[in-house]
Amino acid sequence: MIDVYSWATPNGHKVHIMLEELGLDYRTHAIDIGAGDQFTDEFLKISPNNKIPAIVDSDGPDGQPMSLFESGAILIYLAGKTGKLLGATDREKYNVLQWVMFQMGGLGPMLGQAHHFRIYAPEKIEYAVNRYSNEAKRLYGVLDKQLSRTAYLAGDAYTIADIASFPWTRSWKNQGIELSEYPNVQRWFDAISERPAVQRGVTVLADKRKALTDDKARDILFGNSQYKKR
Amino acid sequence: MIDVYSWATPNGHKVHIMLEELGLDYRTHAIDIGAGDQFTDEFLKISPNNKIPAIVDSDGPDGQPMSLFESGAILIYLAGKTGKLLGATDREKYNVLQWVMFQMGGLGPMLGQAHHFRIYAPEKIEYAVNRYSNEAKRLYGVLDKQLSRTAYLAGDAYTIADIASFPWTRSWKNQGIELSEYPNVQRWFDAISERPAVQRGVTVLADKRKALTDDKARDILFGNSQYKKR
Repeated sequence: MIDVYSWATPNGHKVHIMLEELGLDYRTHAIDIGAGDQFTDEFLKISPNNKIPAIVDSDGPDGQPMSLFESGAILIYLAGKTGKLLGATDREKYNVLQWVMFQMGGLGPMLGQAHHFRIYAPEKIEYAVNRYSNEAKRLYGVLDKQLSRTAYLAGDAYTIADIASFPWTRSWKNQGIELSEYPNVQRWFDAISERPAVQRGVTVLADKRKALTDDKARDILFGNSQYKKR
Repeated sequence: MIDVYSWATPNGHKVHIMLEELGLDYRTHAIDIGAGDQFTDEFLKISPNNKIPAIVDSDGPDGQPMSLFESGAILIYLAGKTGKLLGATDREKYNVLQWVMFQMGGLGPMLGQAHHFRIYAPEKIEYAVNRYSNEAKRLYGVLDKQLSRTAYLAGDAYTIADIASFPWTRSWKNQGIELSEYPNVQRWFDAISERPAVQRGVTVLADKRKALTDDKARDILFGNSQYKKR
């Protein structure tokens, strides 16, 4: 059994989709990041960076329980556990890994900043909105160019590189992106959206998530209530 | 022979340090990111996200040349190639990977934003400076807490998690950090700084790097010359 400590955000969706794709037994534990659940001692023991998602697999690599944080590490772990979605050869595996890292180091963090300055920040700061909106366009351009050459991000096969990236592209409207301007991304997005496991994965914990509009939640997440008061 | 397309930045240093630690044969090719070298067709073929570092290993996993981008993927690749610095068991490996992902997804991107708004942005935007300076402090706090329990980030052994994170902490002054306030990070930082391979790695291409002060370089990197003109 895999215990998943998570929330219905892009990084949470990655792991929910992966578990659905693999058909593994799991149970979810809601970590309401707007209510501060990520700062409890219990959660910090498995996720010292106070971020979702984290997992505890009762049947780890040596048969003992294994806890893990960081969505990218969890995807690689689950791929390794099952021998699926990470390529058959070492060459394929490293090719997938570089695109997982592209998502972890670029696509995720930068689209996250676009969300912040376009949607959540209490002030509209033109420089920051433009900086991250431009970076979003550049990143979608990189995806589109790659997907003009290959069916999926790391080649012909659907892998954890796609599972990592897809949830972040679901919010394209909040990133100042018009998806139809990136036809290869649109094709890829539509193909992944149609997968039954993906459709199940994006509903996990979704009923519990509220919009991040109240001051308390914003303060817990962004520590910026002093700006709100201006 | 490993060809390294790189520049003397934290992400470049990771790979330079790793190659020095492993004692592998390599040669560097300077990609001057202030001059736009990252946008040439030749470079984009191996690094479609136009970021350094990238490598081409003439002796890939199947004996054929293998090219790879994203510093985190390159570290995992070189660790896999040599069987070093990524742990001996699967449990150790995944434990290291989660800290590599912590660096790739959090420490690197967020300290990068701190550098941008504290040093490079043409305007001083209080909200953004505070946002990323506060996040820097939080991240150093996470490092410090972890390093109060273990000698290195992922346990008793020096691994690619340390090699990934160390170069980003060298610029603590630019991140609004006082390193002495994080005594466990300071101890770890000092221990890593003393390693001969690290001392060699951080000098690679260092003589070529110029300060990013001229308008042309800023425009290539940040596309923000319109703000500069105000």
